[in-house]
Amino acid sequence: MTESHIETALNFAEKNLDNALETLFGLLKIKSISSESEFRPECIKAGKYLVDELNRIGFKADLRDALGLPLVVATAGEGEKHVLFYGHYDVQPVDPLELWRRDPFEPVIEEIDGNKIIFGRGSSDDKGQVMTFIEACRAHIEANGKLPCRVTILLEGEEESDSISLLPFMRENAKELAADCAFICDTERWNIDTPAITIGLRGNITGEVKIIAANRDLHSGLYGGPAANPIMILANALAKMRDENGHITLDGFYDGAPVLSDKVKANWASLGFDEGKFLGDIGLSIPYGENGLTALEQLWARPTAEICGIHGGYTGDGFKTVIASEAFAKVSFRLVGDQDPDKIWAAFEKHILRNLPKDCKAIFKKNIGGKGIALDPENSIIAATSKALEKEWQKPAALIGCGASIPVAKEIPEILGMDAILVGFAMPDDNIHSPNEKYDLLSFKKGIRSWIRILGSL
Amino acid sequence: MTESHIETALNFAEKNLDNALETLFGLLKIKSISSESEFRPECIKAGKYLVDELNRIGFKADLRDALGLPLVVATAGEGEKHVLFYGHYDVQPVDPLELWRRDPFEPVIEEIDGNKIIFGRGSSDDKGQVMTFIEACRAHIEANGKLPCRVTILLEGEEESDSISLLPFMRENAKELAADCAFICDTERWNIDTPAITIGLRGNITGEVKIIAANRDLHSGLYGGPAANPIMILANALAKMRDENGHITLDGFYDGAPVLSDKVKANWASLGFDEGKFLGDIGLSIPYGENGLTALEQLWARPTAEICGIHGGYTGDGFKTVIASEAFAKVSFRLVGDQDPDKIWAAFEKHILRNLPKDCKAIFKKNIGGKGIALDPENSIIAATSKALEKEWQKPAALIGCGASIPVAKEIPEILGMDAILVGFAMPDDNIHSPNEKYDLLSFKKGIRSWIRILGSL
Repeated sequence: MTESHIETALNFAEKNLDNALETLFGLLKIKSISSESEFRPECIKAGKYLVDELNRIGFKADLRDALGLPLVVATAGEGEKHVLFYGHYDVQPVDPLELWRRDPFEPVIEEIDGNKIIFGRGSSDDKGQVMTFIEACRAHIEANGKLPCRVTILLEGEEESDSISLLPFMRENAKELAADCAFICDTERWNIDTPAITIGLRGNITGEVKIIAANRDLHSGLYGGPAANPIMILANALAKMRDENGHITLDGFYDGAPVLSDKVKANWASLGFDEGKFLGDIGLSIPYGENGLTALEQLWARPTAEICGIHGGYTGDGFKTVIASEAFAKVSFRLVGDQDPDKIWAAFEKHILRNLPKDCKAIFKKNIGGKGIALDPENSIIAATSKALEKEWQKPAALIGCGASIPVAKEIPEILGMDAILVGFAMPDDNIHSPNEKYDLLSFKKGIRSWIRILGSL
Repeated sequence: MTESHIETALNFAEKNLDNALETLFGLLKIKSISSESEFRPECIKAGKYLVDELNRIGFKADLRDALGLPLVVATAGEGEKHVLFYGHYDVQPVDPLELWRRDPFEPVIEEIDGNKIIFGRGSSDDKGQVMTFIEACRAHIEANGKLPCRVTILLEGEEESDSISLLPFMRENAKELAADCAFICDTERWNIDTPAITIGLRGNITGEVKIIAANRDLHSGLYGGPAANPIMILANALAKMRDENGHITLDGFYDGAPVLSDKVKANWASLGFDEGKFLGDIGLSIPYGENGLTALEQLWARPTAEICGIHGGYTGDGFKTVIASEAFAKVSFRLVGDQDPDKIWAAFEKHILRNLPKDCKAIFKKNIGGKGIALDPENSIIAATSKALEKEWQKPAALIGCGASIPVAKEIPEILGMDAILVGFAMPDDNIHSPNEKYDLLSFKKGIRSWIRILGSL
């Protein structure tokens, strides 16, 4: 593919922007919240919407039944090089709804300080990002009659819930999904004018623990003292997971967590990460994690134990002098290097049981976890991608880490035997998983342009 | 008053039992649910029913307007000794109605395993108990022509809702209500054949603490590590309120909490309290509170710190990898002796703040609290009451404590300046506040007889 083919495709994308936005908005209006079963029909609707759009562009696309929500599979293009693109069409729940400035599913473009911003649930995570790739494919096909290489697109609908379908589906369809490399578009760029390739991701394991004490709710006066309080027991066990230096105390927790190389430390130091601003933006000022590490090191290279939700007893208006019979917490462990999700969870269960009075019960629910991932920055496809991004952004791509887990970035290499390269155009202030999620119009436009260049460079 | 006067009154009560039951049933049929405004007319009807009955007996009784529901005030008798009796004519709501074996307001006597049982809402709490005292007064007047002492009866209609009328009414009518001591009949006897005088009640102070960390909910992958987690901070601070021996660690928490005298300890030990059964009934087996104390000592004589409710983050179905911006807990402290509610709350706030990272905030909400109450078992009226009860039941009265707060037992001494002695004849299985509330016919009969003896002994 020549540079002029790339330019022609870039020009098409430029002219077609309004149509591209209209297509994106249609997708954003669909309430595809995968973790809430009532929205299942909306998830399927989002999948169908993408299938229709991909067929319109020229892909051979269909919705494939799976264990849970269906997956979108689409193929197009010819040639020796074959790229697999992964994204997801489901979104996070929207609560607390009252903190949204407008309906999360009525996307708009708002101009703030001269910048055009797309607001809506999924605008950044991941519908907006998925559409940057699809629009890049459209531009190549419309402008040059064909894609510069073979492309398979795989979109799942359970990335924000349990991803129960993806693994079995990839295993069963490994032959069809085989490619030279995979691109995943679900990450951020480094800053407003610097693209990024994420070479390291934390894994995670999540789950729930419920403590059951008495066989019914009790009056705190008539039973308080002798009766075990499951909230107190839960709080105590959870608090003891973390010592005063921010270290996690679970048995063998740090087994497999690598020590940062000086080279990587230096690379990250050169990125000019503003820790004060990072924390200041979210209203904080002191890194909460392990003492003696920078916020960036904590985020990209160190594991965590977090309580993501807790509930027990009476939490409505006023007061009820009750000792609850049970209390539960949802916990999440971010993992790095070779930390084993199942071993970490087992250590968590052991820790809870160790802190549990003998007459109480603990019930655990473990979700499917995933190890962290670390790509080799010397890899040839990463090098080509890096070059294409530098061409578009006129700045070298940062080779960054990411604190979040994208299980698929681990699963694609494992199951399909190819590298999974993470290139995304989101910004840290996109409020993903939060109220008022947004995606800069610039992210969307230059995302499309970046993919046009990357596809053209392979 | 001679023993023969008491015997005459006891004989009258025996013969008059059917009439007494008829009067009680008339009262039980009135749906005086004070917490539901639609039943306001029924509450007033219950008050009037009692006024009419008291006037019939020979009291000077009337219904007094108040802030909320009216109060019954009745006086009769002459002599140096003057007794104030407190009870309430309102009842709890009846839902869930489907769990009642029959209409809650169609009282019946049913024979179960050879025991006659009165079923109906209010049969135990508190209409049945109130009528034991009124029938005792009737017996003295009918049998001996007069009461053995001056008696003032005060019955409120909002004990099961908000008691908004009682305090202002007592303050405004303190002179009229003045007496040598007060009797409250709203508690249980110790067991089937042992009467009880409640000499200690725990006070309490309750409130809420909210921890605020980041200015919005965060993705646990993108911020986990450096970002403070308010649930973890809350859990940690709450857990640290309690050490491994079950002692509360708040500064000065035990100031004013009396050490149990050996005499009281021995009295309680003699009660044959079945700790295993007490805990077994609620599905537990190990006393959770302070090490080295029996469940009964913990319940009757020791303060507690309980978490009555906790909430933070995502607690719905599935999982959300979120670091919440805030988390809150509702806490309750049960107090004994001279523990000061306000000082306890201040120590709690100090404890939370001490465990709070400097870049996080804590917001507190304190409810109105009250000290505990402790009567002196050597008190002459308690001694006389104790003797009268022993005469009737042929067993010494248990001098018990109660873990719960009964506000009026604290308010009468405070406002009216007299001891408030709690003598009741209910049983723990009376299902008060629950479906199928009942009062044993034995409780009713021997309750009447007990009051005849107590009044005669003063």
